[in-house]
Amino acid sequence: MSEVCFGVDLGGTTVKIGLFSIEGELLDKWEIRTRKEEHGKYILGDIADSIDSKMNDKGIDKSNVTGIGIGVPGPVTSDGTVIKCANLGWGVFSVADELKKMTGIDNIKVGNDANVAALGEMWQGGGKGFDNIVMVTLGTGVGGGVIIDKRILTGSRGAAGEIGHIMVNEDEEEVCGCGKKGCLEQYASATGVVRVAKRMLQESAEESSLRKYDRLSAKIVFDAAKDGDGLAIKIVDKFGYYLGTALAQIAQVVDPDAFVIGGGVSKAGQIILDVVNVNYESHVMFALKDKAFRLAELGNDAGMYGSAKMVLQ
Amino acid sequence: MSEVCFGVDLGGTTVKIGLFSIEGELLDKWEIRTRKEEHGKYILGDIADSIDSKMNDKGIDKSNVTGIGIGVPGPVTSDGTVIKCANLGWGVFSVADELKKMTGIDNIKVGNDANVAALGEMWQGGGKGFDNIVMVTLGTGVGGGVIIDKRILTGSRGAAGEIGHIMVNEDEEEVCGCGKKGCLEQYASATGVVRVAKRMLQESAEESSLRKYDRLSAKIVFDAAKDGDGLAIKIVDKFGYYLGTALAQIAQVVDPDAFVIGGGVSKAGQIILDVVNVNYESHVMFALKDKAFRLAELGNDAGMYGSAKMVLQ
Repeated sequence: MSEVCFGVDLGGTTVKIGLFSIEGELLDKWEIRTRKEEHGKYILGDIADSIDSKMNDKGIDKSNVTGIGIGVPGPVTSDGTVIKCANLGWGVFSVADELKKMTGIDNIKVGNDANVAALGEMWQGGGKGFDNIVMVTLGTGVGGGVIIDKRILTGSRGAAGEIGHIMVNEDEEEVCGCGKKGCLEQYASATGVVRVAKRMLQESAEESSLRKYDRLSAKIVFDAAKDGDGLAIKIVDKFGYYLGTALAQIAQVVDPDAFVIGGGVSKAGQIILDVVNVNYESHVMFALKDKAFRLAELGNDAGMYGSAKMVLQ
Repeated sequence: MSEVCFGVDLGGTTVKIGLFSIEGELLDKWEIRTRKEEHGKYILGDIADSIDSKMNDKGIDKSNVTGIGIGVPGPVTSDGTVIKCANLGWGVFSVADELKKMTGIDNIKVGNDANVAALGEMWQGGGKGFDNIVMVTLGTGVGGGVIIDKRILTGSRGAAGEIGHIMVNEDEEEVCGCGKKGCLEQYASATGVVRVAKRMLQESAEESSLRKYDRLSAKIVFDAAKDGDGLAIKIVDKFGYYLGTALAQIAQVVDPDAFVIGGGVSKAGQIILDVVNVNYESHVMFALKDKAFRLAELGNDAGMYGSAKMVLQ
């Protein structure tokens, strides 16, 4: 039988599990609920059971499993220790050791969810063909991952790639979820785009199609900009300015081959790449110009792909 | 005979060459002039000759030379190709291949001078004991180097660690040497500190011991701040603000174990670490607080050390 591996994306609500060929083909995927009761003590056992029953169903022998990779929602050090996953109720412990005991499979790799998604996009998504990418995920918050020579840059405390909390505006007065002010997340996340839109609608008397909505969303703003709404274009320009300058600063540090932009906000498509690229180009030194900008392609499967890739390295 | 290696620091005026034991002891060092005539065509030959005659003098056999590392003043890709060293008159070519032919020694490693200095400081200087550091060199300009898992982060085009050109002030109106505006180098280099000092002296009527100097220097400014001069303290605070926030942004990307600060400006000593640290702490997210800040220790020898270290990896 040919070799396979499992890629697990552990989220706050559901656990996505993928069965992969070692060539990178997703053979099967399914979900289980994330049981957060009692400080998340059942989560890893549920995952081990689910993988075990899938192996039974498919007649997969343990000797044919290259390993299990798992992405978790919190900082992870390079030896597979989670520092704290507030979201799951977890404290500090070795996910790698636990899952090894529970499954009897030795090759267990653990990564931060945003970093793992970046690795997945490099492997089989928008970053395919590049060895060094910076991925930025524009969702409710802004996450990121840095891939160097096809591997996740973990950092000293598992906090590398936390680019949502780069300060981009020293004049900001509202406080970010992290406690600082002026973080990229306050402008480039779905929530951030709406926040900026509300503020600009309030501060300006300019006519805009956005005024008819009781409840704005990033999608509404980007759609209005595509339709030529002047104020929406200004909001999108501000988004592009902050994200583009942040990516320029990141390039000065790690000089990647490409940037990959994912998350819900990125569904707006080409307009995102255009507005980010122009601001990137004007804030980066000569040697760093003309980088590739790509949209993410794997959507919610990126974490599974990246988790699988970790065990294949 | 025990194994040795050579570490070369190629500068625009002189070439510094060090003979090292493979344990990292500097056994001998000397300098030759950098002959920039005819687009620098004699430089590598001069280095090869100088190493050859040192080997003769010391009775070192080629078989006992682990390799030669060289740091050059420009971007270098990971295969040892220089992109352009304007400073030396060089275009694009493989320094590694050339030096291999000239010396008959196979293990040749080439790095950017700032990156190589960072590696040297990690190995035997201010960053000793850490595997992941960010070094910033505050000289005429601001250079930098990022070391991940004891290795230089080169980047896609050899431009990783170019942290002097991170934009830190979007309101700046003067143009940086790189063509952009508001680069860290405009505030934190020796020239930058003087530039800020002159501007602040002009804009303020405040009494200051700095007013008696016809020709300011970064050293004069830091000395005055240590003596309690109010305006000098404000200038140093501004320096610390820009450097500290830039290091905070860098930490959000690579999460190093430690920062090492070197270059002429860093001779001011502890005051530099203090003023940078306080600004770093207030601009970084929780998981990245309390990093080690160290002064560089190898001075002008850092490049030789780092070049030697490259061939020992």
